[in-house]
Formats: sequence, C-alpha cells, structure tokens
Amino acid sequence: MQIAMVGLGRMGANMVRRLLKQGHDCVVFDVNADNVAALVKEGAKGASSPADLISKLEKPRAVWLMLPAAITPKIAREFASQLDNGDAIIDGGNSLYHEAINLSAEFAPLGIDFIDVGTSGGVWGLERGYSLMIGGPKAAVQRLDPIFASLAPGAGQNIAEDPETGTAPRGYLHCGPAGAGHFVKMVHNGIEYGVMAAYAEGLNILKAANAGNSEREVDAETAPLANPQYYRFDVDLPAVTEVWRHGSVIGSWLLDLTAEALKQDPHLEHYDGRVSDSGEGRWTLQAAVETGVPAPVLASALFERFSSRGEAQFAGKVLSAMRHAFGGHLEKAK
Amino acid sequence: MQIAMVGLGRMGANMVRRLLKQGHDCVVFDVNADNVAALVKEGAKGASSPADLISKLEKPRAVWLMLPAAITPKIAREFASQLDNGDAIIDGGNSLYHEAINLSAEFAPLGIDFIDVGTSGGVWGLERGYSLMIGGPKAAVQRLDPIFASLAPGAGQNIAEDPETGTAPRGYLHCGPAGAGHFVKMVHNGIEYGVMAAYAEGLNILKAANAGNSEREVDAETAPLANPQYYRFDVDLPAVTEVWRHGSVIGSWLLDLTAEALKQDPHLEHYDGRVSDSGEGRWTLQAAVETGVPAPVLASALFERFSSRGEAQFAGKVLSAMRHAFGGHLEKAK
Amino acid sequence: MQIAMVGLGRMGANMVRRLLKQGHDCVVFDVNADNVAALVKEGAKGASSPADLISKLEKPRAVWLMLPAAITPKIAREFASQLDNGDAIIDGGNSLYHEAINLSAEFAPLGIDFIDVGTSGGVWGLERGYSLMIGGPKAAVQRLDPIFASLAPGAGQNIAEDPETGTAPRGYLHCGPAGAGHFVKMVHNGIEYGVMAAYAEGLNILKAANAGNSEREVDAETAPLANPQYYRFDVDLPAVTEVWRHGSVIGSWLLDLTAEALKQDPHLEHYDGRVSDSGEGRWTLQAAVETGVPAPVLASALFERFSSRGEAQFAGKVLSAMRHAFGGHLEKAK
Amino acid sequence: MQIAMVGLGRMGANMVRRLLKQGHDCVVFDVNADNVAALVKEGAKGASSPADLISKLEKPRAVWLMLPAAITPKIAREFASQLDNGDAIIDGGNSLYHEAINLSAEFAPLGIDFIDVGTSGGVWGLERGYSLMIGGPKAAVQRLDPIFASLAPGAGQNIAEDPETGTAPRGYLHCGPAGAGHFVKMVHNGIEYGVMAAYAEGLNILKAANAGNSEREVDAETAPLANPQYYRFDVDLPAVTEVWRHGSVIGSWLLDLTAEALKQDPHLEHYDGRVSDSGEGRWTLQAAVETGVPAPVLASALFERFSSRGEAQFAGKVLSAMRHAFGGHLEKAK
Repeated sequence: MQIAMVGLGRMGANMVRRLLKQGHDCVVFDVNADNVAALVKEGAKGASSPADLISKLEKPRAVWLMLPAAITPKIAREFASQLDNGDAIIDGGNSLYHEAINLSAEFAPLGIDFIDVGTSGGVWGLERGYSLMIGGPKAAVQRLDPIFASLAPGAGQNIAEDPETGTAPRGYLHCGPAGAGHFVKMVHNGIEYGVMAAYAEGLNILKAANAGNSEREVDAETAPLANPQYYRFDVDLPAVTEVWRHGSVIGSWLLDLTAEALKQDPHLEHYDGRVSDSGEGRWTLQAAVETGVPAPVLASALFERFSSRGEAQFAGKVLSAMRHAFGGHLEKAK
Repeated sequence: MQIAMVGLGRMGANMVRRLLKQGHDCVVFDVNADNVAALVKEGAKGASSPADLISKLEKPRAVWLMLPAAITPKIAREFASQLDNGDAIIDGGNSLYHEAINLSAEFAPLGIDFIDVGTSGGVWGLERGYSLMIGGPKAAVQRLDPIFASLAPGAGQNIAEDPETGTAPRGYLHCGPAGAGHFVKMVHNGIEYGVMAAYAEGLNILKAANAGNSEREVDAETAPLANPQYYRFDVDLPAVTEVWRHGSVIGSWLLDLTAEALKQDPHLEHYDGRVSDSGEGRWTLQAAVETGVPAPVLASALFERFSSRGEAQFAGKVLSAMRHAFGGHLEKAK
Repeated sequence: MQIAMVGLGRMGANMVRRLLKQGHDCVVFDVNADNVAALVKEGAKGASSPADLISKLEKPRAVWLMLPAAITPKIAREFASQLDNGDAIIDGGNSLYHEAINLSAEFAPLGIDFIDVGTSGGVWGLERGYSLMIGGPKAAVQRLDPIFASLAPGAGQNIAEDPETGTAPRGYLHCGPAGAGHFVKMVHNGIEYGVMAAYAEGLNILKAANAGNSEREVDAETAPLANPQYYRFDVDLPAVTEVWRHGSVIGSWLLDLTAEALKQDPHLEHYDGRVSDSGEGRWTLQAAVETGVPAPVLASALFERFSSRGEAQFAGKVLSAMRHAFGGHLEKAK
Repeated sequence: MQIAMVGLGRMGANMVRRLLKQGHDCVVFDVNADNVAALVKEGAKGASSPADLISKLEKPRAVWLMLPAAITPKIAREFASQLDNGDAIIDGGNSLYHEAINLSAEFAPLGIDFIDVGTSGGVWGLERGYSLMIGGPKAAVQRLDPIFASLAPGAGQNIAEDPETGTAPRGYLHCGPAGAGHFVKMVHNGIEYGVMAAYAEGLNILKAANAGNSEREVDAETAPLANPQYYRFDVDLPAVTEVWRHGSVIGSWLLDLTAEALKQDPHLEHYDGRVSDSGEGRWTLQAAVETGVPAPVLASALFERFSSRGEAQFAGKVLSAMRHAFGGHLEKAK
C-alpha cells in the first residue's frame, strides 16, 4: 500500500524502513534532504517538497506526519490545504490529543480524514514493531489497516484477532474517535514516567545501601544515621537488575534495558542525571487534574524530572531563607 | 539434595512441588496437618512436629522457613536451639532484613548458618520459577546451590553463568552477607508498589476519560470542567492493556496479568479497592528516609494503599473543619 | 465612593457590609431577591435586574462580580454589553486567571476596564478585612483605590504605604496587568491547600500515636507493628493545637481556626472527611506543570482531596486485581 | 528556681537568658568555655565540668540538656551516673522520642526523672518565648512548672489556664508520659516541613510566571509551552508575601519571616538552595509509615530537601540511561 512519510528523524525513518520491508510503497519528505536521500537508497521514493510529495501520491492519499509536537498542527494545516476529499493525514507524533480533536473538526468539511496514532516502541520499533494506539473515523482507520498491521509487532506472525480485543494482540488498536489514539498514548507515557521512576528510586536506594560505611557529621544540622550496622551492603546493580529479569514480579522491557545499560556502565558515568520530559507526562497530569483523578505517583515522577534539571532551586532558596530566619541556620556548604 | 520446608502456605507448598519435580528430597512441616498430608501425597516426607522434622534430616541439615514475617524470628530461634554446628536455617519469607543481620549474628556462635532469601514469583513460581535474592555466608550459599538453581526460573534450561553477573541470568543471585537478600527483595517490592501504582493511576485516568459526558454541578464548591469536549472517550481498558503488551515501552509481566484480569472482569467488580501492604513497601521507604534518598514515587504508592483502607479519613475531617472555619464551607453530601 | 455588587452570597454580602460601614454607596443585585432585600435593610441600594442596577449607577460605573467561576464570564459579557466607555467590571471571584486576560482584551475596544481581584479572607473578612490581589490597568485600579482600601484589613488603621511594597502592608496590592490578581490568588490557594494538608497529615499521625495499644492481625497480608511500645500516646489534639499557637514555628491563622474547631469538636464528628476543591488548587498545579516547576507538595495536597471523595477507588481495584493475579492475595474484608 | 543548662549553643544560651530575666538561678556548662563565660557575664553561674556543675546545684537537682541529638543519650547517661534519687534530667533538644522512652525506663530505678521537652521558637524564643511540648512523670513536670512557665511565651502576661487545654494558652503543655513531648514536637516539625514546602513551591511558581517571555526550544525533547500568553507576569515576591500577611487565609509566622527575608534579598541570592533536615521530619515520616497513616505532603517536603542536596542524582542517571536505551534520547547539555 502507498503511504507518504513526512519527518524522517529517529522514529519516522525507522518506520519507513519497517514498511519497506513489508513491501509497502513509501514516498518520503524531510526538511533535511540528506534524510530523504538515505531512505531513497533503501527503496523509498523521495520528494523535494510537500507539493512534490503530494504530486507523487495516488488518491486517496495518506500522509503520515512524524514531527515535533510544536510544529505538527502548522504542517498538518499546510498539507490539508493541498489535499483533497477522501485523503487522510496521520499524526504519529507526540502531539497533545486536543490537536487531533480540533484538527479533525477543522478538516472534516474538506472531506479530509485526520487520524491520530500514538506510536510506542522507540528505536527498537524497527525490529520489534511499534505499539499503535489509533484514533479517528472508523472507515479511514480500516482503509489504512495494512499500514498499521505492518508497523505493529504482530506483522508476519499470523496472530488471530481476539473476539474481545480485536487487533490488540497484534499490537495495534483503534481506540476511538479523533484524539483517542493520542489520549491513550499520552496516558501510556504518563505510566511510563511512573514505572521508570519506580525503578530509578529503587536503584538509588540500593546504591545508598552502604551509607553505614561512611561517617556522617555530628552537628545540630544533620540527622544522625541511627543504625549504621544496617547499611553496609555494596549492592551489585548490574547483577541485581539481571536477576530481577528472571521470574520476579517486576520483570519488564524497561528492566531488560536497564540491566543492559548497567552492564555496559555500572555507575552510569555517561549520564549527569538531568532528565528531559517531552510533553505527554505533563498532559497526563493535566488530564488527571481536570477530571479529578488522584495521580500522585505520576505527578511525583514528572516533578522529579523537573527537579533533576534544577527547577526546584528557588524553592530550596526559600526554605533555606526560612530556616535562617527562624533558627539562624546557615546553609551547609556543598 | 535434601531440604526441609516449614510453612506450607501458598508459597511454601508450591516451592516444595517445584523442588520435588526437580528430584529433591523434601521433608515438610506445617502447623496445619492437612497441608503436610497434601504434600506427602505428592512425594514429600511429612513431619508431625519441628523435632520430628529435625530427626528426619541428615547433617548438615537445611531448614527453609516460609512463614509470616511476624513469627519468623521466634520459629527460627526454636529451630536454632535444636540444630547443630554446620546446619543452616533459611528464611525465604518477607522478613525485615534487620532480622537476618541480627539472627545471623545470634546463631553464628552455634555454628548455624542463617541465610535470607528474598523470593519473588508469587503463585506463578511453581511453573515459572522463583527469582531468588540471597544473603548469607558464601560457603553455606554455595552448599545450597542445587536448591536455589532448582527453584529459580533457569532450572533445566542450561543457561550459562555470566562472567559479570554470575548466576543472575538463571534467576538467583548471592547478593551479599547476612541481610543482603532480604534487603534487595525489600527494594524489589518497593519498586513493585511503584510500578503497580503507575499502571493503576493511568488506568484510572483512562476510565475517567468520559468525564465530559456527565454534568458537573455549578456551584462555588466545585471546579467546573473547563473543557468537557476533551473528555468524551469511552476507553476499552481490556483492549488497551492488551495492545500495550505488544511492542510498547511499558510492556511487563504485571501488565500481562493486568490485561488478563481486565479481560475476565472489565470493570473489576470483584474488588472493592481496599489494598493491603505486607511490609516491604514500608521498609523500603524507611531505608530511603534513613539514608537520605528521595523516594516520592515509592512513598506515594505506599500512601495510596493506606488511603484506600480509609486511613486518611481523619486528615480529611481536619481539612473540612478548616474549610468550614475560614470559609463557612459545608461538606458536600456523598 | 459608589460601587455595584453583583452576587450576594457569603462573600459578596459581607463585602457590601464592610463597604457600607466605611461609608461607601453600594448598589446590589442578586438573582435571589431575598439576598438583595437583606442588604437593603442594612443600607445598600437594591436593584431588581442588571439593567436596573446599571441605571442606578453614576458614570464612570464600577460593577463588582462575586459569582461562581463557572458563570462569571457569561455574566461579565452581559454587563459589558450594557456598560459604556470608562466603566469598569471587577471580578472578585475564584475565576481562572485566563478569563481575565481574555475578557480584558475583549472589553478593551469598548473602553471598559476589566479588573481581576483575588479576594482572600473567607467569612472572617467582614471583621478582619480581605486580602486583595489585584490585576488590571493601573489607572482603573487607582480610581478604585478607596474601595480596595476599605475592603482590606488596613482600613481605618492609618498604616503607611511601604516604599518597597506599596499598599501591601495595608492588605491590598496591584500585582500587575490583567490576570495578575487572579494568578497570585490562585497560587495563594495552591499554597493554602498545601499548608492545610500539612496540618491535617500531622494531626492524623498524632491521632494514630496510640496504635500500639490495639492488636494488629498476624498474617501474611499485614505488616506487623514492629515496636508497639513506641505508639502508646493518647494525644490531646485540642490542647496540642492550642499550645502550638503560642510561640511555635508553625503558628498561623489556619492553626488558630483548627485549634478552635478541635475545642468545639475534639474528634471532628461533624465531618465525614470528604473534602471539596474549588478550582485554584487545580489551576496552580497546571501552571506548575506548564512552566516546569516541581510542586509535589501542592500536588499531593490536591490529590488527597480527590481521594477523600473516593476518586482513587478504581486504582485500588486495579492494585487488588494485580495482587490477586500474581500472589493469589484476596482483598481483606472491611 | 534553680536550673542547670548544659549546651550553650544558639538555643541553650538564649533559654538561659530568658530564664535569667525572669529571675531564675541558672548554672551553665558547655564544652566551649567561652560560651560559659559569655553567660556568666549576663548573670549565670558558670561550671567548668559536669561534676562542677552538679556540685553547684541544690537537691533536688534539675539538669537541662540542650545538645545535638546524636550525643544526647551518652551525655544523659553520664549525668545520670552522677545524680541522685529525686533529681531530674531534661532533654530539650531534637532527640528521637524513642530515646526518652528508653532513657526514662533506664533511669527510673535510680529515682531520676527524665523529662523530654520539645522546644520550638528558634532564635526568636528569647524574645517571643518558646512553645514547649513536655513528656514525663506528672510530679516532676509540675515541680519544674516555674521554669516551663518562664520559658513559654505567656510569661509575665497573666494568662489564665484553660479548663480544657490547661497551660496550653500560656505556651507549654504536659503532653503525656515519657516521649510524648518529643513525639509531639517531632510531628510539629514534620508539619513545619510541609508548611514551609507549600510556601516554597508556591513562590517558585510565582517566580516562573514570566516563562512566556522567554523562548523555549522546539525539538522532540522539549514540551512546547502551549500558551505563552498566560505566563507573562513579573511578580513582585516581596510585595506579594507582604500582602498575604494581612487578612489572607495563609497568614502565618513563617510567612512573616519569609516576607521579611524577601524584602532584604528579593532574589534570595544569599542562598544556594541546598536545604538541611535535622531529623524530626524523617522520624515523623517513619512514624506515619509504621502506623499506616498516609503522609504524602510531609513525605514530599522531606524528599525535596534530600533532592536539593543532590541525592536524587543517581535516580536521574537511571532515567536518562533508560531514555537512551529505548528512545535513543541523549541528555541535553546544561
């Protein structure tokens, strides 16, 4: 089946590769011509501009956008103005699901279907396949089924649909109307932040398990370590994360990756600990707040990332200023 | 190899079954004679009392305790008083790791080895094997290697030891001296609480995704739902958890179980939402606090369990009393 | 000075009373005619409709809205359509500050000033005065200075303005352009939630200080209370909150109110513990999330309120379902 | 009345000063002889050693310890070995309340009363008085009533005892048997951490209210600021904290101090934001965990302090390693 891919970064390029392998006809465009050239070598058709891309597609056309969230609506509108009744635009990026609801309504009078696809799988998707959470009009989603089926992990594995969960066992799912795909993917990422933080905090506690071997200062500013005899373990983190992979309750793909990363770099010296967040974790929290759902774990996970980037510093200054004001406490030097 | 098992509940009985299958000689005891009888039928040797159990063991003896944390130290001491130099007591339950440090020091003068084994795998361990985190003296741990290897998931799979992580790929690991096994298992469970809570919060948010379809009251006590148009999704939780299992970043064994549970009972009507906690989550948090490690996600996960059992109610009363005092706000009826 | 007040609930009515006492000319309207009549008896001029209200005002008119957030924008627009160049609309309610930014821009072409006033003080404001956080165009704010000065706590106390903080020591402050007043009040309430929760959690811990006097079950589902001897205090909460009011670091007006409430009802039997939230706590969290500021305390305080109303129940069900799935754990009966 | 004070740091020295002013006879000792000399000039009797101190006291003696928690039990035992039946040792420091329970039981056979006094008030106590939370045997507490009354804020103010809360309105309270004083003070400090954090987070949000005025990068790693038009406020923190002091719901002594600190140093440039914690916040959390009381706000406040000192860094490294592993994300440079 023919599909256009716009945006050939880490995700977009690998998705094209996976589709090419499954025999699809991919027409590709990126503002960086080198990215286009690379995929042309691998069998894609290249386009030199959005207009060129559109001209190379047969109707009904399908244009998949794989772009940063900040620019997706603008680009989607540009394409919509050049497409026709019956064509489809797919947003496979990490956009706020509101956009899908809004753009879908905006494009409907033009007869252009807007489909939002939450795409999970990262750099491993090329090989493992991508878990796809899809929102949009049923007919358009069904028309694109060959694309979804090929991107998803079940491709080529002859997995039957399930009477209750449909295509879900094959790794893709039509989750509902416009926005449903990005909504479900948003919450997926919110959960991801929480799961990641659980492992990260636990490993940090294991790392501190030898705290009893070092001296803590004795002064009025510092809580004494009451029972140093209970904190004299030097935990082998690569081995512990490895053993947890086999039969423990917390086995997971994230744990697999963590164990591998620790094996390569047991003290994680390649990292400084400043953690980015790319939107969905924030939006998940905002959805929780708007609908009145308690989400303290997801919130804590998000705020830890903010703090890792120094964003709590002014709050710390306020606390130190208060402590000085009521107790004459001076900040301890680093 | 011969091993005694004391405590034939859910965990203990299945561990005996797994050991019997691998050809070990199991002598078993439980205060409930029916539990003993059941395993005798399956090939274990039964004992009618601790003394009887001990009399049926060859030296050096190995007595594995699989008991509630609250009574383990008492029973361990009772056995220690009847065992001899060279024998070993293994605590495979969910004891606080302090006990292992203390009991180990207490039994050392008797020449009795105390081994603490964190055992993960739940009711599935019989089939999948148990992930074992082991603490104690090296020689004793090595002597019991055949038992650990058989309980662990790698049994019969001919997996090589890893130069860096040793037996970890086979699902068991000597984590360090006395207490190290229970310490690592404790943190494992702390992480487990956090991971579970991440999924639970996320699914709760998905469930509320249709909040815009119901009316919210308009009064000064209630925040209006600003954008109901963004909350009109009826999310199919069994299908969504199923699709996440295939290629998504949050794939895990806990997710596998959750998807299956939702397939059986999509609204989880068999549950009321009052969640127990059995110790390790609390101890993990206390270790974090004592060593000065931030653990907001693990803490939030634990506190959600407390709250689910009504333990926040008095705090809520204080808040309502304050709101009444400063704003004349009355509590809204249920 | 003449001022119109629309919305004569708890807050609006008392503000009129305070203004009347300070000699202002108040024209009042409410959809409930009884509320109007009550204030007419106390010296206000009553109006029977918005149009009647407007007709009774001299130019430049000032109409203060004290209404639920959900209906304020609609009513503001209705008034704007009937007012003239040079008039002012003041929103003193708990509106999202976005509204002020939007309405201000909307009314500017009409020459109508929109002023947003965050108003703190609750039912005590009549007597103590209201802390006012004001946003809007400088000239309009200055024109209304006599009203703000009278509503604020400093009224009649001859407090000098401060060279650095201006009118702040008198209890009102022009915080910036449109929206600044409601923004600052929003964060004020976010802080309020956090402060309240800190007291509430602490008192809950004090209440549980006698946990060692009751038996906890011994089973694999329940963490044993390790050291019951440390939890045998019957804390007298009314006395403790009273003593904290005198010289302690946590003395505050909220503590004053809490101590009084506990004196009246030591076990807070008048309350069930279901706590409302009226918007600002949510919006504060959303501002934190949008700007990348860690706010785990404010988030936890908000989520505790959600949980107090049962909104965590489905998450609890998911946790219990997981525990059953991996460990065969059954939920304990209530 | 005669009292001995051991430990003449910030707190101890000022307490002696307050007692001297009220006409008490203070015998003082500190390992630093200069501290002794300073108070001798102000009217105290100096001692050159613990033995010298004891020799200068009339029976029944009362020795008040005002020392770091880490060394208090050791010093208390040294004094106990030199005191007699009927004497009293008072621990006014920030000790874990377990110590009071244990030391009290240890000294009881000697006839020595151990009294634990939680002392709040900081450097302001000299002038404002100290809020005292007292645990220990009733008779001993009553014997020392003149000392407590003089240290407390009510001294010289002729405040009547309250039929329900006794001496609480005068600023001191006998909270219960051994440990009760330190337990109540511990929770007081736990609350203090939460209250402080609520203000600190709120002020951090106000500080970020101009985020819309700066550009945020547009890339796949960074969530775009959706609505910059809502974040264009330059909030005057000294003025805002000042206005909140007057009539707002969040007025408090901590707010008074914060407003003053911000007036002196509006950007808190004297502080780096690394916040100490001195024990009680940790112990409060541990009490909450042991007794099963949800305390997410107090926990978050504590963990923010840990994080401010860099203790979350390894967790951040784990997160960055995971993000790299699944998504190829590189940490953004500082």
